[in-house]
This record gives sequence, C-alpha cells and structure tokens, in this order.
Amino acid sequence: MSLDWMWHVEWYGKTEAAVYAIRRVHYWGKTKYQTISIVDIPIRGKVLIIDGKIQSALGDEWIYHEALVHPSMILHPYPRRVLVLGGGEGATIREVLRHKTVEEVVMVDIDEEMIKVARKYLTEWHQGSFDDPRVKLVIKDGREYLKENENEYDVIIIDLTDPVKGSPSTYLYTREFYQLVFRALKEDGIFVTQSTQMAPESNVYAVIYATVKSVFPIARLYRIFVPVFLQEWAFTLGSKKYDPLLLTKKEIEERVKNRIMGTLRLYDGEAHLGMFNLPKYVRQLINTIDRISTDDNPIYLPV
Amino acid sequence: MSLDWMWHVEWYGKTEAAVYAIRRVHYWGKTKYQTISIVDIPIRGKVLIIDGKIQSALGDEWIYHEALVHPSMILHPYPRRVLVLGGGEGATIREVLRHKTVEEVVMVDIDEEMIKVARKYLTEWHQGSFDDPRVKLVIKDGREYLKENENEYDVIIIDLTDPVKGSPSTYLYTREFYQLVFRALKEDGIFVTQSTQMAPESNVYAVIYATVKSVFPIARLYRIFVPVFLQEWAFTLGSKKYDPLLLTKKEIEERVKNRIMGTLRLYDGEAHLGMFNLPKYVRQLINTIDRISTDDNPIYLPV
Amino acid sequence: MSLDWMWHVEWYGKTEAAVYAIRRVHYWGKTKYQTISIVDIPIRGKVLIIDGKIQSALGDEWIYHEALVHPSMILHPYPRRVLVLGGGEGATIREVLRHKTVEEVVMVDIDEEMIKVARKYLTEWHQGSFDDPRVKLVIKDGREYLKENENEYDVIIIDLTDPVKGSPSTYLYTREFYQLVFRALKEDGIFVTQSTQMAPESNVYAVIYATVKSVFPIARLYRIFVPVFLQEWAFTLGSKKYDPLLLTKKEIEERVKNRIMGTLRLYDGEAHLGMFNLPKYVRQLINTIDRISTDDNPIYLPV
Amino acid sequence: MSLDWMWHVEWYGKTEAAVYAIRRVHYWGKTKYQTISIVDIPIRGKVLIIDGKIQSALGDEWIYHEALVHPSMILHPYPRRVLVLGGGEGATIREVLRHKTVEEVVMVDIDEEMIKVARKYLTEWHQGSFDDPRVKLVIKDGREYLKENENEYDVIIIDLTDPVKGSPSTYLYTREFYQLVFRALKEDGIFVTQSTQMAPESNVYAVIYATVKSVFPIARLYRIFVPVFLQEWAFTLGSKKYDPLLLTKKEIEERVKNRIMGTLRLYDGEAHLGMFNLPKYVRQLINTIDRISTDDNPIYLPV
Repeated sequence: MSLDWMWHVEWYGKTEAAVYAIRRVHYWGKTKYQTISIVDIPIRGKVLIIDGKIQSALGDEWIYHEALVHPSMILHPYPRRVLVLGGGEGATIREVLRHKTVEEVVMVDIDEEMIKVARKYLTEWHQGSFDDPRVKLVIKDGREYLKENENEYDVIIIDLTDPVKGSPSTYLYTREFYQLVFRALKEDGIFVTQSTQMAPESNVYAVIYATVKSVFPIARLYRIFVPVFLQEWAFTLGSKKYDPLLLTKKEIEERVKNRIMGTLRLYDGEAHLGMFNLPKYVRQLINTIDRISTDDNPIYLPV
Repeated sequence: MSLDWMWHVEWYGKTEAAVYAIRRVHYWGKTKYQTISIVDIPIRGKVLIIDGKIQSALGDEWIYHEALVHPSMILHPYPRRVLVLGGGEGATIREVLRHKTVEEVVMVDIDEEMIKVARKYLTEWHQGSFDDPRVKLVIKDGREYLKENENEYDVIIIDLTDPVKGSPSTYLYTREFYQLVFRALKEDGIFVTQSTQMAPESNVYAVIYATVKSVFPIARLYRIFVPVFLQEWAFTLGSKKYDPLLLTKKEIEERVKNRIMGTLRLYDGEAHLGMFNLPKYVRQLINTIDRISTDDNPIYLPV
Repeated sequence: MSLDWMWHVEWYGKTEAAVYAIRRVHYWGKTKYQTISIVDIPIRGKVLIIDGKIQSALGDEWIYHEALVHPSMILHPYPRRVLVLGGGEGATIREVLRHKTVEEVVMVDIDEEMIKVARKYLTEWHQGSFDDPRVKLVIKDGREYLKENENEYDVIIIDLTDPVKGSPSTYLYTREFYQLVFRALKEDGIFVTQSTQMAPESNVYAVIYATVKSVFPIARLYRIFVPVFLQEWAFTLGSKKYDPLLLTKKEIEERVKNRIMGTLRLYDGEAHLGMFNLPKYVRQLINTIDRISTDDNPIYLPV
Repeated sequence: MSLDWMWHVEWYGKTEAAVYAIRRVHYWGKTKYQTISIVDIPIRGKVLIIDGKIQSALGDEWIYHEALVHPSMILHPYPRRVLVLGGGEGATIREVLRHKTVEEVVMVDIDEEMIKVARKYLTEWHQGSFDDPRVKLVIKDGREYLKENENEYDVIIIDLTDPVKGSPSTYLYTREFYQLVFRALKEDGIFVTQSTQMAPESNVYAVIYATVKSVFPIARLYRIFVPVFLQEWAFTLGSKKYDPLLLTKKEIEERVKNRIMGTLRLYDGEAHLGMFNLPKYVRQLINTIDRISTDDNPIYLPV
C-alpha cells in the first residue's frame, strides 16, 4: 500500500509534533464549544479528537480511564454517590459503574451535542453506560453545578479538556474551583482531576498539584504512561481523610476483588505502587513550585 | 519567528511519526557502521541521532543513563570491575565512574569513528570520562570481546542500538549472547540491557525479558519514561544472586549516599519502586510471551 | 491562531510531498470505486480529493477546466455533439455548455455515487450543469460506452483520474482505447485527454502523447500551470483534420467572442500561444520517447 | 528501504508546505548574512538552501538560469559588458560566459563566505566560472556598487534572494533601485530581475513588474516553470530600446546559433514564445496592479 494521505498533527508548540495517519473519518463537526473529529488511526484504533488534541484512543483509553477512576474509588471505603465532570465519551462513568457500591453517578457536561455524537459514534467507549439507571446526565457548566451542591458526594472525578488560554476549562483548574469541589464532597470525600501531560517544557501539572494541595489536607500526584499521548499523564488526588500512600498492595487487591465487576487491565496493587512512586526529579519539581492557579491568575498550557 | 525548515522525523512504522525542528547541524557523517547526526532541537537541546533514531538528548539523557546504570550498580554489594558494551556517547561510563567502588571500566564499542565524533561533539555527555584513568576503551565487536572473558566482571551494562532487521545489533539480544554475558560475570554478577521501547505495537521488550530469564536465575523488567523518546523505555536486569525487588527504599538510599559521588537527579529509593512496579497489563504480557530470541531466530523491532 | 491539526499530504513517491492544512471536512466517504473527500484548504478553497490526490480546487479549477475544454472546442469549426468521459465534478460539462454551438453533451462516468456527492457538495463546480437539458448523463464504463458509438461526436473530452497501477483508468490511456475514441469521432472530430503532470521524474505524459500520435494524424501536447497541483499539467489533443498550431491569435479571439457565453478567465489567443509553445527540453523529450501504451503493456504513473 | 528521516520543509505561509527527504548533508553553516545548507534530495539532486528556501537544485537549475540569462542577452544586439548582482552559485555567470560577445562580467555579491562555500561545494553549478579571466568578482552591496556606475553595462542581471520582510534584499526591488540600474546601463541597455514566484496568494511579481515599468520605457514579464520550486517563476525584463515581443523565432534561433557556445537545453525561439505569451488572468492581474515598490514603502513576500 502506498503512504497515507490524511494525517492528524498533534503540535507541541511550534517545533515538535506527532503525526498520525488517518484511515477513515467517522465524524467531523463543530459544536457550540469545540471541533470534534472521530477517526481511525492505525495501531491506535478509533480516536476522538477535540480541537486538535487526541482525547482518547480505543487502543488505550482503558489505561487513562482506569488510572483516572479506580485509585480514588478504591481509596474510598464505600463510594455510593459519585459526580463526574466532563468525560463526554462515557468511559469515565463506565468505569465508575463497575463499582458495586455505586448507587448514583451524576455526569455533568456543558456540550450536549458532544454527548449526542459520543452516544452515536463512541459506543465502544460508553458501552451503553448512558442508559444505566444509576446515571443522571446534566447538561450544564460544571462549575455552576458544583455551586448548588454541598456535602453531597463521596467521590468527584474531573475529566475535562486541558486548560488552554481562552478556553472555559481554564476556570476548572483554579483554587476557587477546588474550593467548590471540597464543599460538594462529604466529610470523607475524595476527588481526582486529570492534571495534563508531564512534558519537560510544562509545569502545569505541578501548579495543579500545588493548587489542590492549598485546598485539601491530603494531595497526591500520580501518573501513568498513555501510549497515544506519547507522554506520561498526571492526575491529582485530593482527599479529606484517606491517603493513597497508606493503602497496602493487599488492601487494594482485596477491594478490587470485592467491589469491582469484571476484570481490570491496568490497575491493581502493584500498578498502584508504580503510579504513586515518582522519580526524584518529579518530586523535586512539585515540591519547588508554589504557584497556585486562581481565577484572577489562572494557569494555562504553553501553546 | 517563522516556522522551522529542517526537521527530524522519527518514524514509528509508516503511519506515525514524531517530528522535531532542527535549529542547528553540529555534525553529519557516515561511519563504516552508521549514519550519525548531531543537531540542536528546541526544548530537547543537543541531540544525537543514529540511523534516523534519536539516541539521546541533552535535556533528558540523564534519565536514561541513570535508569540504565544505577539499579544494577546499587544492587551489587561492591562493584569493582564493570564492562560497558556500546554507550558511545560516554554518558554510561560517566554514570559508572560516579560509583566510588569502581576500579576499572572497560568500554567496548565497534565504531571507532563514532567515539571520535562523540569525544569532539558530545562533551556534555561524556564530561571527559574517556580520559578517566579507570577507563579502558576497546574498539571491537562486543560479542567477540565477551568470548574472551570469563568470570571477570561484577556488572555488565549493555547500551546498544535497537535490534533492527539486518543490523549487527540483532545478535546482541539473543540467548547465545546472554550466555556469553553470564559466563563473563563473576559468580554474583549482575547485568542490564536496554530493552527497547514499550510501544503497544511491539513486544520485543517482552521477548528480550523472556530471553534473559532463560539464562539468568533472576530476571527483572523495569522501565522509565524518557521524554525525548515519547515512550517508556524498558530495561532488563539479569542477576546471578541478588534480586532488585528485595532491596528496600532505605537500603537503596544508604547505598546511594555512601557510594555515589555527586547528586543523582532521577534515581533513589522511591524512583526504584516506581520503575520496578509495573502495570498489570505489562506483567500479563511479559508472563505470556515465551518466545526466546536465538541466533537462529532473532527478534527484531517492527519497521 | 495556533497551527492547523488536520493535513492533506500529497505524496510524490516516498521522498517528496506537498502538505495542506484542512480547515473543514465537508464530506468523507468511500464509493464502490474510490475514496472521496471534500475539504476546505486555506488559499485554495474547497477541494475535491480522490484516493489521496487533489482533483481540483475552487481557487483554480477554472484554469484546469478552461485549458482542458476550450482549445479543442474552439479548434472545431462548429461543435454540436460533445462526449465527456469522467469529469465527475461537473465543471467540464459546465465549460462545454458555454459554447453556443453545442446541442448535446453526453457525460459518461462509472461512479454514480461520485456524481451524487458532486451534485450535493460541489455546486460551485457544476453550477447546475447536470440539469441543463442538453446534458445526458450515462453511468457506465467509458470504454464500454465508446464501443457502442461510431462517427457520432464532434469533440470528445477525456477527464479521468491518472493511470495508476491497478486502477481501471489505466486502460483508458492505451492505443486500443484511443482507437475507440477515433472511431467514435466524426470525420473532422477532435479529442483531448488530460495527460498527467509534467514532473521531471515522470515521462507518462510523453508516452500518452506518443500513443495518441500513433492513432491520430495530428497530435499536439500542450500544458498549463495549475497552482494547486504544484505542477504544469499536460493535455494531448488528437485531431483528424484541424491543427491547433495553425490557428492564429485573431481567429481564436473571434471564435471565443462569437461562440462562448460569458467571459473566460484563462483562455484567449495569447494564452493559446503560451500553452502550445513548449520549452526545448520538453519537445526533445516527447520526440525521443517512442514507447506506446497498449492494453498488453499499459503505462502507469510511478508511485 | 525505510522512510527518510531528515526533511527539508519549504513553508508557504503556515498552511502549506512542500517537504523533501534529505539523503546527505554536504554543508551546513551560518554566514554573516544567511543560513546556508547544501544537501542531497532524491529526484532533485544536490540542492542549495538559503534561509530555508531552496535556491536551486542540480536537476533543474539550468531551467532557471537559462530563463534568467538568455532572453536579455539574446535580445541585446551585442552584449560585451555584463553586470550580475547576486547569483552566488556561479551559474548565472556560467550562462553569461557562454555568449561569445562577452568581454567582461562583473559579479557583485555581498556575502563573501557564501561565495567560498559555492566555490567548494557547488562545482556543478559554477563549473569553474569564477576562474574565467573575463569575470571580476566584487564583494559589496549591489546597490552601493550601482551608485558608482553610470552608462557602463549592456546587460544587467539581478539574481537575488526574494524580498522578505526585514531582509536587505527588499531594497533591491524598489523604484529607486531600478533608477540606479537604468543609470548604470548604456543607452540601449537591458536588464532582467528574478521576480519571485507566481503563486496565487502573492502579487509581488506584479508589483515588481509595475515598478520596473515606472522606470523603463519597455517592461515585459515572462515566466517559466521550475520543477523544484513547484511554481512558475517570474522574471521582469526592462529595456531602454529593444522589445522581446518583437523578436521572431527565426531571429532568436540565429542569434542563439551564432553567439552561444555549447547547446542550450531550455531556451530557443519556441520556448521564448511560450515564456512571453501569458494566460489571460496573468495579464489582467499585471495590468490592474499599480502599486509601485519604493524605498519608503517596499513590497514584501507574504510570510
């Protein structure tokens, strides 16, 4: 076969990019908020791209979504009510729903059209989760939703696009926002937010960590390598009471066994240790950065 | 500034690539064995490229070289004599020489011209290590060298280019080769080999691990994310007596403190845990693969 | 604005390509015969791409289509019945229909779905021409159609995709095919075929010229630069009686004035001279090549 | 063979580019004025690149240089003294020296290092022309040189890099500059300047034409397609007395035969007609543009 002729280019600034051949276009459209494309890419499989950034690929979305969801859910002794902000593909709620303890998942997303597209074109992601009776879908700005909730949730999972200059997501990574998250959690609640790539030229993840730490008594940064991102991906867990560093391998494995339906592919006790034990230079960086993202002075990814 | 006009393209098969702007060409030449270029790339800094593959970048070569060298060196109770195969930049011996216990490092490389180029253009890598009196440089095929050595070394570090179809490196990843390594080690000797990228479309690293395991009583796979590679990089440690999984954080930190000159940036007790504790799917993969690379049927990277 | 993220790559072999940012995807689909995409590209405007090759761009399709249609139509003293093979966008018939002398245009295309897509998404090209009462659309293989026609047409215009190995178009550039064209023309008939790019690494255009010359008493190669192709495009005119080199500027201008509705943008007497007067090396090449494309041994574009 | 890994990217704005595989780097360096690279590119051969723009390729430099030099030289009845500004490769003077009438060629270039590099690495271009006793090389700003010359030259050939914002070349395309050229020519002198690409998004060539026309009684735009540029290239000829449109094919062929040593590959009478007879839309454009480039308000290429 000759060379492919349609390519997705994922720019990192103006001097680096990853390029991916596109074999098929399933969907291309602009919603009120973003440009969405759903395409097939060799090796990675079907891929969701929003505003030029790959959001997830069928080939490894489970790495990202297991890493996002399970550490907090397992850390909590008995998560009944869960709030998910973003996560339009439906894979975040899919992982939450695997926990037998869960009675209700509220998913809040601002972009109704995105959800419609996902329901139609991303069935491999949501696997029907939108129709699970435990799920309540709310079309609304996540920050607005939080304002109306206090002491409501066991676990809050934040799965939004990256903070980019001029994007509304920017105000969903600030101290004021995390204060709303804190207020919406129960007294032993836990939250986690995707915290952008751990690229050498960016310390945004460290600022997110510092910001969470300024609001929650316990804050932990962890990360996992997601192949399609060509980067390690950072997550920050903020907790009112429980510390993921104190969970033993054995405890994790028991909880996974007792509480999760089906078989996990990424997460277990050993994976947990791999994710939370960081290289020396990463710990030094996150202990050095004291900048906090605020509504007045929010952090952005370099573009 | 307008867009850059000379680019390095790192192909992953024919459907993906990473592209990097080149700001300056320091050196471009063909030796008897390979095509070498040394260029400046934004963010990454000076970069060594061999046969179109980035070998190391100034910005993060220390991640790769610390991860390659220190786990084995620290695991050994008192490494005096060390053999390095490959590592033409001189950074592998640089890290070895930081260990106070070391009395002799023999570095074997087949490409004399590559060494000359490195001495001249990669001073930031070797930092004069080639002139350290403990270093003995041998220009020779690594496999030939091993044949002549028995029960000689405490630690052997293998830092060669990837096994690619038609390349001589291919025969430096086979069972027969590892048997020579075993023979050249002392009775409590340890060896480590770079084990290629952990890309989803490749299981070469798992075959290398299986091959090492077929020769050494103790074999451990570990990995670290090296930003410029856009991948996690795998290493396989083969040991006659000591097991890196049994080292505690505290032991590691004491050994680092007592035996290493200067300050490490990547490696310490917590980093060690992060590197050796693997995600569930990686463990499943390496426990499933039983193919062994042999001289008759060697493994290659997919191209 | 940041850099674009979806790109069309037009490969010329494996060592050169032109890359174009895609701003919007209007249509993407596979018909029984080909992969079609219709996208917006900056500077060029809306673009039709078939099997990875740009077929025409709104910004300059008129250059290609005027150059394809008018030299033959003007050369003929009074073209009443015209046959068009291919030309799925509808722009070839659009130009033919501008000639007041035309009573009937038969357009033959094998790909019904392509025509449907064109009618819907390429209105700027066809401008309603498919609905002109003088047009008769036949869905059929062009070669089959020709077999059934003898001494029927004043002008035949061949506007097919390039001959590429394994493509059915290949057999629409052979001597046997041109013999069918000859037979279908009236005794003073004229035909023209697009004759691929005049790239330095290809002599396909010269073989097409030699092949036409082996069938028609008068054969002339001419060319025009079409910006979006980044190449000069070749056309071969085969004629039973009239010679385009004998037309004077004045004759051309009179015929254009009397017979064409609306205003041409490319073609007039001076443009005609520019198109038919070739550089010395092109004339030398086409006079040197004596290879003829036959059904047994057809010519392909290098890929 | 696997895909190439070093590529030259020729950007046209930020939304289009041509990319060329680089097989070998002959030279890479920065002079006081520009960044020069000399590399091998498949199909095109050895290529000179200045500041990221391909200046000429071995495979077709003769098209550019014959088109630049011969129309003016042949138009002049007996060119004895010729001035070349720029043309650092030495191929412009090579073509001038083929004219038996020439007694002296003064070549003026500002970049001495560029000339040194050309003498060493571009022997296929200059073919020893720098050592021809008729050549006098002057290292100087071309505009300064012109100021010191009045009524001196039969033909002046301007072969400079494109006018780009911030580049010194900008002031070598203005009315004031062409007035100096006029003054330096004898009373029947002729000059020609390369006039940039005829890209659809640029009318710089038309402004250059208008500017020349504001100074010279006779001004003619002509163009030729140069494959490696992927564009038609424009030239403007300014003449005090002779008009290239009045030369017949026969006259051209006689002059070529009598006055030129060796065999031309591009230029002859028919090629002349092809180059000077322009498409209708080009003539309309150049007759519409009345902007004149001046020192106060010079024209630039869009970047």
